[in-house]
Amino acid sequence: MILTVTLNAALDVTYPVDALVPGGSHRVSESFSRAGGKGVNVARVLSALGIPAVVTGLVGGPTGRAIRDDLRAAQLPDELVSMAGDSRRTVTVVCGEASDATVFNQSGPHVDKESWADFAARFAQLVRDAQVVVLSGSLPPGVPSDAYGRLTRLSAEAGATTILDTSGPALLAALDARPTVVKPNAAEITEVTGHDDTAAAADALRARGAQCVVASLGPDGLHAVTPGGTWRATPPWRLAGNPTGAGDACVAAIAAGLLAGEPWPAVLREAVALSAAAVVCPLAGDIDVGLYEQFRTSVPVERTRAPVSR
Amino acid sequence: MILTVTLNAALDVTYPVDALVPGGSHRVSESFSRAGGKGVNVARVLSALGIPAVVTGLVGGPTGRAIRDDLRAAQLPDELVSMAGDSRRTVTVVCGEASDATVFNQSGPHVDKESWADFAARFAQLVRDAQVVVLSGSLPPGVPSDAYGRLTRLSAEAGATTILDTSGPALLAALDARPTVVKPNAAEITEVTGHDDTAAAADALRARGAQCVVASLGPDGLHAVTPGGTWRATPPWRLAGNPTGAGDACVAAIAAGLLAGEPWPAVLREAVALSAAAVVCPLAGDIDVGLYEQFRTSVPVERTRAPVSR
Repeated sequence: MILTVTLNAALDVTYPVDALVPGGSHRVSESFSRAGGKGVNVARVLSALGIPAVVTGLVGGPTGRAIRDDLRAAQLPDELVSMAGDSRRTVTVVCGEASDATVFNQSGPHVDKESWADFAARFAQLVRDAQVVVLSGSLPPGVPSDAYGRLTRLSAEAGATTILDTSGPALLAALDARPTVVKPNAAEITEVTGHDDTAAAADALRARGAQCVVASLGPDGLHAVTPGGTWRATPPWRLAGNPTGAGDACVAAIAAGLLAGEPWPAVLREAVALSAAAVVCPLAGDIDVGLYEQFRTSVPVERTRAPVSR
Repeated sequence: MILTVTLNAALDVTYPVDALVPGGSHRVSESFSRAGGKGVNVARVLSALGIPAVVTGLVGGPTGRAIRDDLRAAQLPDELVSMAGDSRRTVTVVCGEASDATVFNQSGPHVDKESWADFAARFAQLVRDAQVVVLSGSLPPGVPSDAYGRLTRLSAEAGATTILDTSGPALLAALDARPTVVKPNAAEITEVTGHDDTAAAADALRARGAQCVVASLGPDGLHAVTPGGTWRATPPWRLAGNPTGAGDACVAAIAAGLLAGEPWPAVLREAVALSAAAVVCPLAGDIDVGLYEQFRTSVPVERTRAPVSR
């Protein structure tokens, strides 16, 4: 089973408008809301592929209830843990193409110590049934800065592999727990390592503890550095759109590949195809299945370096 | 007692950002929310002046509960009626001056027949204790298009005067119920009458049933056409800012003036002063009391036409 963790789960609200006019007043006649946060999006993509994924994380208040109601509607297994405080919302204003979306991300309520302890205890139970654990997104205020490190260690003790998709201090603080895969994007990997060069940045993250690094480079595809070799996988066409959706679909493909024990080139081909199938969808967590089928046979994966020992 | 009606009550959420970047992603570390909708704002201004006002209208769902919680916190008497469906939100993105605010107004849930009947019955009770009824804002979907006309008639039967602050078809459909005062702004009065000239537009609204017309002309002040005469009241300084707040404060001043039986020139002087004290505040319903005290003695009111019979 794949367990996805979203400590900062959100209700993602979409406001369609004719045009975004800064300083103007906009009538929003229809709005859409659904459960979000990166781990929830990953579970949604996996579910669309028929791969069972369980959602955990922290939710609270009326917005938390709305998140849970939507998970039920989407038939995503809900193992979220209740906290004090009201869950955050994100508001995305769309006026045409997905790439034109303007996003407002609330940072989420402060998580009290008791809620974090409740979550850690619940996670320790859930991880026993997990082969792959996905740790996605920012840490809400109040959660320990090494939260992802602790969850990575609990996962390793339970025999599960971990995929970590976060940035900044939350990423750095987790590295010495040796997550199986970290998936930063180009901006994130440069920010945490100071290297503009992806290969050098990936080596730096591996030197600090990451077992594998899969850097997502937007339309340039994926650059993966693993103990078994280094690969570059590139989409056959360039597609622009929703970067959040693309990143979460990439993580979903990696999780599915690790669960099935696929070799890295196959995992990366799927990850590029699924990212491309997601980037064109306005809502993160959605994929264009036809595009996915078309892409998964046509993604070139190139070995760029021999296996490195570590 | 002044009774304010907000059929489309809202939770007004403010997102402070450093800069609004269309197509960008914005971190909102602190957000603020409070009960809103034009009638709620009017009650808030009256309450700041020490004038009791009761809030009624329709709310529902978790957002409705948040609206009621905030009314309680603000000590505003809550006589809202529950409906099925979740109340709407407005999101205002601010980055500096109040005049730079970018507003997203959800249109609100569909009101079922039963909820409307519940509200009409409750209104008929509440209006017995009211001397002045304020009918503010848009009509939510599902409410009869002549809703304000019906409430105006119920008010008249109970001996209460009415101030109607709405636009478009909701305004037009209420005129033959003979509201005491209608308060369109410049754009609204042109839209419903087709006249660019305020005097001609006001005459047209009075010909269709409005007893008095107070047109709010932004920094140009107020143009009032009443059976007792026509006046123009202008702010001594030009202030730019929050037009919603200014309009609601203007209505609050008219309501207070009608309750106290003040003559029109005094009512208009207060209305301009209170609008000016509101326009500078980023949140509708707030006033700058110092500015109000300064303005209320210095607003010139000029008679522009002799009494007209009707």
